[in-house]
Amino acid sequence: MELHFTKMHGAGNDFIVIDGIHQDLSNMSRAQWRYLADRQFGIGADQILLIEKPTRPDAEFKYRIINHDGSEVEQCGNGSRCFVRFVREKNLTDKKQISVEVAHTLLVLSEKDHGLVEVNMGAPVLDLPLIPFHPSGLESRVTADTINYLLPTKEGSFWVTPVSMGNPHAVQIVDALDKAPVLLTGPLIEHHPSFPARVNAGFMQIIDRNTIHLRVFERGSGETLSCGTGACAAVVAGILQGVLDSPVSVHTKGGELLIEWQYANDGKNASVMMTGPAETVFEGKISVPDL
Amino acid sequence: MELHFTKMHGAGNDFIVIDGIHQDLSNMSRAQWRYLADRQFGIGADQILLIEKPTRPDAEFKYRIINHDGSEVEQCGNGSRCFVRFVREKNLTDKKQISVEVAHTLLVLSEKDHGLVEVNMGAPVLDLPLIPFHPSGLESRVTADTINYLLPTKEGSFWVTPVSMGNPHAVQIVDALDKAPVLLTGPLIEHHPSFPARVNAGFMQIIDRNTIHLRVFERGSGETLSCGTGACAAVVAGILQGVLDSPVSVHTKGGELLIEWQYANDGKNASVMMTGPAETVFEGKISVPDL
Repeated sequence: MELHFTKMHGAGNDFIVIDGIHQDLSNMSRAQWRYLADRQFGIGADQILLIEKPTRPDAEFKYRIINHDGSEVEQCGNGSRCFVRFVREKNLTDKKQISVEVAHTLLVLSEKDHGLVEVNMGAPVLDLPLIPFHPSGLESRVTADTINYLLPTKEGSFWVTPVSMGNPHAVQIVDALDKAPVLLTGPLIEHHPSFPARVNAGFMQIIDRNTIHLRVFERGSGETLSCGTGACAAVVAGILQGVLDSPVSVHTKGGELLIEWQYANDGKNASVMMTGPAETVFEGKISVPDL
Repeated sequence: MELHFTKMHGAGNDFIVIDGIHQDLSNMSRAQWRYLADRQFGIGADQILLIEKPTRPDAEFKYRIINHDGSEVEQCGNGSRCFVRFVREKNLTDKKQISVEVAHTLLVLSEKDHGLVEVNMGAPVLDLPLIPFHPSGLESRVTADTINYLLPTKEGSFWVTPVSMGNPHAVQIVDALDKAPVLLTGPLIEHHPSFPARVNAGFMQIIDRNTIHLRVFERGSGETLSCGTGACAAVVAGILQGVLDSPVSVHTKGGELLIEWQYANDGKNASVMMTGPAETVFEGKISVPDL
């Protein structure tokens, strides 16, 4: 089967984007998706975005996110920005604000100037059992509007703020990000027994009240160039601790993301808004082997 | 500048192949080459093959090999097979045996059946100072037609056969390749002071007299899926030690290579012939930014 695709990236998180409306991909096997994502034998990407017709009337499109191993996942902030650039560049829509069905959720995405896209990432979840996080037995301290917990590991103990952005994050503040032992302690935090579903480990250096530098050790993936939900979780943790003010510019190895969030102390949290780049790298066509 | 390219691989060693005869790439900067080779922000590949008109009358083509970091290198067995498939598929030649200028050398390459390509890899260099290898202070033993040397490292001592295929190799025989500590000891062998230009560390398991399994820790690159010169060096080392007979099927993580070599004990070594696969993965076009 011959397949046309576009290779894109959002802050270094890279995607194969495929128009599944004008091409029929219903017979693709998991092995064929894995082949496409393979960096030596196939096209190569972190994930594949497959754009389809929506199944609900309030959405203009649907897209599916296929992981590097051929499995499907439910959410990816960097990918949603690439989706918007793709449907705009291919003239699949003339709207600047696009409603799209992803898994069982409706996302509303907006194209901004200069190739930037704004994504509503939903409200952070701070209710500990829902993160999920089990604080029993851990030392804790109150910092402004949140509680930090001391996670003991064999490489030392770390004060973290637990936040969920649909996926769990443990955010810590470090003095110097270039000296932070992310690869050494990331896996220990990821598998800490206080996080029963494992956790993404975020390391942020506060530059000023509107600027941080961030590295994230992602659950199941290791350190990545840029993690959209990790940027949101870090900013939420910083605002709750009283050291950051919205909007916050988040600098990652893959590029810069702008995060906006207003803390409401009535328990009804606002959505986190993420604005960032999405770039088209090249156009290609591939003959997909039977697998 | 808009550029048309083909993505290919030879036993998992992957290349961006560019027709520089019908496209003018004379103004490409090193930063632009690096951009093309980048796996997240560009196309992604181990190396780039740029095909040009020859500068000598006995060659039909010339090609240059551009490394992942934008520098040029002189030799790559897996790349030369991709070159042959490319010029045949693009109808740039109607010959099955192709003479090509690479650096200051003339290579003669032959297309075989079933998508295989045969490459004359030149004669192995066994003269120790030319490898370059300094045996002083090392324990040694004679094995059939060669001398093995015991390399001490902080993770143990290893009997190796030094061979150059244009680049230096230290080949060792292991009992079980899946248990060999390639990533642990590879860097120690690579930087061993007896190899002043560093060395590629080969680990081979003998399956029978015509079959080996091989892993190679490449100088400056770490372990790769497949190393053409490493396969040649391993077979030469095995034939010299009397444990292999030509032809030898070399199984690597990236695929299978067939190596043929006749040992001549008159000091005039024959060329090593390598036959292996080369696959076209996809066609693409990219707009290269000014860098």
